[in-house]
Amino acid sequence: MMHDKCQLWDMHTLTHMQANIDDATPELLAHAIDLLLKNGAIDAWVQPIVMKKGRPASTLHCICHCGPSADGVDGIRNEQVDDISAEQRLLLILFRHTTTLGIRIQRNILRAALKRKFVEVQLPYQNNVRGGKVDVKISSLNNGEVVSVKAEFDQCKVVSEESGIPLKIVSSAAERIAWV
Amino acid sequence: MMHDKCQLWDMHTLTHMQANIDDATPELLAHAIDLLLKNGAIDAWVQPIVMKKGRPASTLHCICHCGPSADGVDGIRNEQVDDISAEQRLLLILFRHTTTLGIRIQRNILRAALKRKFVEVQLPYQNNVRGGKVDVKISSLNNGEVVSVKAEFDQCKVVSEESGIPLKIVSSAAERIAWV
Amino acid sequence: MMHDKCQLWDMHTLTHMQANIDDATPELLAHAIDLLLKNGAIDAWVQPIVMKKGRPASTLHCICHCGPSADGVDGIRNEQVDDISAEQRLLLILFRHTTTLGIRIQRNILRAALKRKFVEVQLPYQNNVRGGKVDVKISSLNNGEVVSVKAEFDQCKVVSEESGIPLKIVSSAAERIAWV
Repeated sequence: MMHDKCQLWDMHTLTHMQANIDDATPELLAHAIDLLLKNGAIDAWVQPIVMKKGRPASTLHCICHCGPSADGVDGIRNEQVDDISAEQRLLLILFRHTTTLGIRIQRNILRAALKRKFVEVQLPYQNNVRGGKVDVKISSLNNGEVVSVKAEFDQCKVVSEESGIPLKIVSSAAERIAWV
Repeated sequence: MMHDKCQLWDMHTLTHMQANIDDATPELLAHAIDLLLKNGAIDAWVQPIVMKKGRPASTLHCICHCGPSADGVDGIRNEQVDDISAEQRLLLILFRHTTTLGIRIQRNILRAALKRKFVEVQLPYQNNVRGGKVDVKISSLNNGEVVSVKAEFDQCKVVSEESGIPLKIVSSAAERIAWV
Repeated sequence: MMHDKCQLWDMHTLTHMQANIDDATPELLAHAIDLLLKNGAIDAWVQPIVMKKGRPASTLHCICHCGPSADGVDGIRNEQVDDISAEQRLLLILFRHTTTLGIRIQRNILRAALKRKFVEVQLPYQNNVRGGKVDVKISSLNNGEVVSVKAEFDQCKVVSEESGIPLKIVSSAAERIAWV
């Protein structure tokens, strides 16, 4: 997937799909995002827009890696959808599960990406199922410079809910330990 | 316009124009959308953004088919604007009718599109100028699988306004009949 | 930078960078916009989006001219960042100063741009440091047709604050004078 390498970060390519939707409910859009993420999208999201006749609508966005994929579509496996690309699989989900009739597709969009690694840190808040342990994601330039340190949100949430410590304090404590 | 055909849907290309605007009124933006749609845009819409100095602004978007067009611009016909492409015509409208000084243009964006056909259905609500008849748009994959059934909104609105039946009931009734 | 010229406006190319961010504060995003604009971005802005798990997030956008640049990055000058392109400089700012781990990059996006010139006009409101003088930007098609006349906002703001005249009246007065 990696096709180019500059000095400070890696470069990948991805495909970006977009559909303007003015005739689906917000609950359907949130469901479509879940389906896209479960079926190989790198990311999926909605943007509020105003379409013709003043309609408060949404652009549904989805990005995926370029190239072929061997997975089935949406739990459904048949001759039609076996052995299709991630792009085709996600387009099929968009057409089946939203109300869109046309999807814009941009292929070979570059993405600059940081290197990432995880370290596990031990927090002093141990009265929880995680025993106060959370993973922290450390992201770096290719020269080793650390530019981002981020405690895993869902793990901090568990520690916060069971210890009563606010989540923002749990995550900043974990990130402080990881920086050392 | 159709330059590629995959198994399940047709592919077209279009041109996407975008302008960030922080010095026009919302009423002017809505007027620009109307003008773009009347002059050959496939679609036009605005996205709220926040620009420098915290300005709550808009990105005005417009898509059109790639390639030349013989229509005049904006009702104005002269040697300058006769026989220009849809792209040029819409750019000219954007420059003349909004306050933008620079418009981003992306050509040859792919669009996957479903096949569409209309069927007319007869609703039990007949006390209206349409006699209870509304068109329903049925959209399908190229293999015939129906993925979307949608009653024409503006026709349902007429039936609703004249019969007093809520629009959401009119349209779902029409779509239920069309599915059969 | 100008690589193409049509009849009515000039065409340039630019690079468009985008990052979806769900783990930074709004104050950090506003700061990133300032940094990008101070370091060679033509424009930078945020768009509200909703990401997975219903997170109210932002897409941070930045556009710059294509091609190399000799300036340093972000006040920091060293062997790593001297003599890099505007694109690389802005990517480095995004990675260092926001929390993004991946940035989408689109190069060679066309931009249609109007010709611009400034004229200074004298307003009747002279009790202010500007002596009632403000610049008005006049934008034209390449055939000379004026399509936009816009008083400099920040100058009108000074006149308004010191004279007590509402800004909208100051700017429309300046624009009326410039049209003559």
